[in-house]
Amino acid sequence: MRPIPLTRYLATRSRLVDRALDRFLPRATAKPSTVHKAMRYSLFAGGKRMRPVLTLAAAEACGGKIERALPAASAVECIHTYSLIHDDLPCMDDDDLRRGRPTNHKVFGEGIAVLAGDALLTIAFEILAQAAPTPRYSIAAQIRELADAAGSRWLIGGQIADLEGEGRKLTGAELRYIHRCKTAALLTSSLRLGAMSANATPAQLKAITAFGQNLGLAFQVIDDILDVTQTTEKLGKTAGKDIAATKATFPAIYGLEKSRAEARKLTAAAHTALKPLREKATRLREIADYLLAREY
Amino acid sequence: MRPIPLTRYLATRSRLVDRALDRFLPRATAKPSTVHKAMRYSLFAGGKRMRPVLTLAAAEACGGKIERALPAASAVECIHTYSLIHDDLPCMDDDDLRRGRPTNHKVFGEGIAVLAGDALLTIAFEILAQAAPTPRYSIAAQIRELADAAGSRWLIGGQIADLEGEGRKLTGAELRYIHRCKTAALLTSSLRLGAMSANATPAQLKAITAFGQNLGLAFQVIDDILDVTQTTEKLGKTAGKDIAATKATFPAIYGLEKSRAEARKLTAAAHTALKPLREKATRLREIADYLLAREY
Repeated sequence: MRPIPLTRYLATRSRLVDRALDRFLPRATAKPSTVHKAMRYSLFAGGKRMRPVLTLAAAEACGGKIERALPAASAVECIHTYSLIHDDLPCMDDDDLRRGRPTNHKVFGEGIAVLAGDALLTIAFEILAQAAPTPRYSIAAQIRELADAAGSRWLIGGQIADLEGEGRKLTGAELRYIHRCKTAALLTSSLRLGAMSANATPAQLKAITAFGQNLGLAFQVIDDILDVTQTTEKLGKTAGKDIAATKATFPAIYGLEKSRAEARKLTAAAHTALKPLREKATRLREIADYLLAREY
Repeated sequence: MRPIPLTRYLATRSRLVDRALDRFLPRATAKPSTVHKAMRYSLFAGGKRMRPVLTLAAAEACGGKIERALPAASAVECIHTYSLIHDDLPCMDDDDLRRGRPTNHKVFGEGIAVLAGDALLTIAFEILAQAAPTPRYSIAAQIRELADAAGSRWLIGGQIADLEGEGRKLTGAELRYIHRCKTAALLTSSLRLGAMSANATPAQLKAITAFGQNLGLAFQVIDDILDVTQTTEKLGKTAGKDIAATKATFPAIYGLEKSRAEARKLTAAAHTALKPLREKATRLREIADYLLAREY
């Protein structure tokens, strides 16, 4: 049997994630409807579902079933979406546009946007608590994994460092720290939770982790490059915004060519990390190549 | 052996909670220190620790050990503190003063305050995931309990309804809905998590739940009354603020006398609920009386 092409694979998986999220979230009409409408507005805004698709692919790469990984996949997408809503707030990055649509607070107002983000963060743990424990990974261990990645040391810590770095020149090390916290940590955790749902061996979990750390940084370097080289229309968010706000980016510190080389190097390291998983990790390899092959 | 007086009991218990929180939270110097300083600023701001003390007392009332209830007690205090930080934001209730000190965003700025709240919400689940499962209550069940109470249907839902009700006259039913969501749900959940840590029987859990629902509403009615009758200095927050903002309160809808009668009625119902727990619930009864006996 010929495997289906990656683009169809990605489309199928992201539809699976959409359906799971729709099932896990309260209806838009559930009382009080404003917060549920606001949660769904950002959650179903045409996101790429990159993190949850990685969760499902990691589960398969470790010999597991994707159905068992759906709660974790849905939970990481809720965390990702909440972080975007809060990052876009006027008191943070002050963005009006996200995925080609007005940001949450532009539509619902700041108060509701804060609360919709809070609610998505909260429901992420409620959803993950509905996952099945595996012999090696209790639900408690899975909750701790997600809370750590989303917490003050990683996801939130990165946004703090980002806020504090605004308006001054960052070093390469500082920029890497921010990207590791803001992007690589949750992406790695998305993969690890998929592996955990498959009861991964310690060696499998280690391989998945190294893959995620390199892929996550690669992804962010590419995002930085795209912000410089692409138009607002294509990007679905305000292009050149990072530079306009004198935010540090890889191209701003290293220039475009060196940044591109860095992205290629990180992707190669991601591939190397997957070797122990052999042919089971084919989809993860394809996804890594696909993310790197975005025009940058 | 004579039992220690309630005031000493409360002081001892709240010190236990303080120490547990200090252990569970990252050091103020942990990187990035701004967020950890901001989390600790609000968490150690002289709060009464009412919810976590109820968690510990509920554990005892169900025959459990308070040590086993400390993760749940710490988690509910983190949730409560996060909700105060976010409620005080300019885009919400816009409060400058809380527990007699400047609010989190007044000290750290709005962006950091949003993130410190997010981090406290996140760490609550990380802390609760460190609790011990009991034969009747898995960690997953305990996580779902907290996420439900803190989520869009209850704690957050109440704040939404509160925001949406501003500036117009609410009915008594609407006001009760807000108070049940904003106050009674988390307070009840605090008690239930204590009971769960003690492996409460279904009958014990039911009694604790009914107690919480009545106590929670009673507590909020009394808070409304105090806001009208007390001075800013005594209250530690801006008095009369609810009325100034034309927010609905029990005294505004029913008048002071009827509100006081309602508080007494609710406290009586709370006492009745505790009957099945017999003398083990003595402290819970004392706490209910103590909360009702605040000068209102």
